Amino acid sequence: MSRPDWIALDWGTTHLRGWAMAADGTVIEERGSDSGMGKLGPEGFEPALRAMCGDWLDHGSVPMIACGMVGARQGWTEADYARVPCPPLSPALTRAPSDLDVSIIPGLSQPDPADVMRGEETQIAGFLALNPGWDGVLCLPGSHSKWAHVSAGEVVSFRSFMTGELFAALSTHTVLRHSIPAEGWDEAAFDAGVAETLSRPERMASALFTIRASDILHGAAGAAARSRLSGLLIGAELSAAKPYWLGQQIGVIGAGGLGSLYVRALGAQGAPATQANGTAVTLAGLIAAWKQRTTA
Amino acid sequence: MSRPDWIALDWGTTHLRGWAMAADGTVIEERGSDSGMGKLGPEGFEPALRAMCGDWLDHGSVPMIACGMVGARQGWTEADYARVPCPPLSPALTRAPSDLDVSIIPGLSQPDPADVMRGEETQIAGFLALNPGWDGVLCLPGSHSKWAHVSAGEVVSFRSFMTGELFAALSTHTVLRHSIPAEGWDEAAFDAGVAETLSRPERMASALFTIRASDILHGAAGAAARSRLSGLLIGAELSAAKPYWLGQQIGVIGAGGLGSLYVRALGAQGAPATQANGTAVTLAGLIAAWKQRTTA
Repeated sequence: MSRPDWIALDWGTTHLRGWAMAADGTVIEERGSDSGMGKLGPEGFEPALRAMCGDWLDHGSVPMIACGMVGARQGWTEADYARVPCPPLSPALTRAPSDLDVSIIPGLSQPDPADVMRGEETQIAGFLALNPGWDGVLCLPGSHSKWAHVSAGEVVSFRSFMTGELFAALSTHTVLRHSIPAEGWDEAAFDAGVAETLSRPERMASALFTIRASDILHGAAGAAARSRLSGLLIGAELSAAKPYWLGQQIGVIGAGGLGSLYVRALGAQGAPATQANGTAVTLAGLIAAWKQRTTA
Repeated sequence: MSRPDWIALDWGTTHLRGWAMAADGTVIEERGSDSGMGKLGPEGFEPALRAMCGDWLDHGSVPMIACGMVGARQGWTEADYARVPCPPLSPALTRAPSDLDVSIIPGLSQPDPADVMRGEETQIAGFLALNPGWDGVLCLPGSHSKWAHVSAGEVVSFRSFMTGELFAALSTHTVLRHSIPAEGWDEAAFDAGVAETLSRPERMASALFTIRASDILHGAAGAAARSRLSGLLIGAELSAAKPYWLGQQIGVIGAGGLGSLYVRALGAQGAPATQANGTAVTLAGLIAAWKQRTTA
């Protein structure tokens, strides 16, 4: 293997992914591990990094650029937030406290309504690198879904929704766990859930318990219960995010199942959305950060 | 101690409370334990009952009347649901599978929207026994808050809200746990949270993450964060339950802190509410069930 010119790192709460890169942006090799920031104390980051890609570093110091929760207060070292409106990639990278040459991309913050993102700014930069001149709204589904208004290369404003984490907490830490299996899907139940809270978001508070009560009284199918919960939560998010997406060009980051659910739910509202591969836009964003740094 | 004529049992998910009773409804002695239904398998109920009040039974068989989750599918034995509209106390008690003479009060069910209650029906009966001829709406705050429309001695309809369980799941099993302490209270933050979701329930989905983001960006006080979460959730419940309470006579069951929060939030909407002691109405309901049984 040829020596990488630099290393791209996507270091989130639950995963670490690294790419050995050539200077021109070509991927030499890709690796992943489950050494997410959530598992590591401050002393654990450097060993985790060496364990995954120590051999890439054998021939001397290789610059690395990292994005994600590695830069959170509970991460390796806190990387500041750049305040919107601003371009997604701030040039002010933060050096990790290590002999390794690791630079962390800052997150974005918004004072009012108070909001933060960390990792998604790199995906937004990557989406813009792959779609030059794009204006509109980007939806980044996940534990804490983000909606970002992007114009003229800047993030103008954004909002976070705890949709993914709510789904996990409700389906595993409340009475709904008795009625919601880990797998199974029912599109009609999902669509009905989306429609219910998108048009009547105030129903959310009472609709949740009906999932349990329907099971007790009518023996509702687990797949339908699971899909209905997902639909209710995504419908409530789309209702609250309507000022973002209504009448806008929409991009959804994430080619997997979750991104497709958002595209489906938006489509039912007559709002077509472009879907982009999450890993691809992350890597494109890290490459954009590398280019910005080497040309600075 | 004189021998009880009967024993009243309030057997919920987390607690067991028993009263040794005279035939005229006088309390001879009261005891409690933490042997809630949530901790017990099917074989554990009888030993838990004997452990708490075995000496009350020394002189022979004493009839017992129980309400609560003891009658759930995961409880001692499943007591049916009576379907609303109906009086809160169905005369069709269910015998527990035991040498002890334990009769369990059925819950209430509603086919559409699917809903169930178990334990609250006894509190409603007790409230009506203490307030004869009362018509209006009863709010029973808790893990699964209930709103019941009561008229002419019957429960006409009801709705459940997972407000209490949502508070617990959000504050201990999501990222909000980093910002929400176990104790602390800020009335202004509570009031503002209630007002926000009561008038704009669609904001709930986005307001939750602001609790975390405010802490990260502005170092928000824990007491304010905790009170804001409570306010947002109760405001959303009041918004969804508005068709129940608007313009109605309102009773709130629960004299403790949680009941007072509901009374405060309703008061801010110009809706005065009567507050009743939860234990007192439970006992009054169990006495009503005893009287109904002995006069049947």
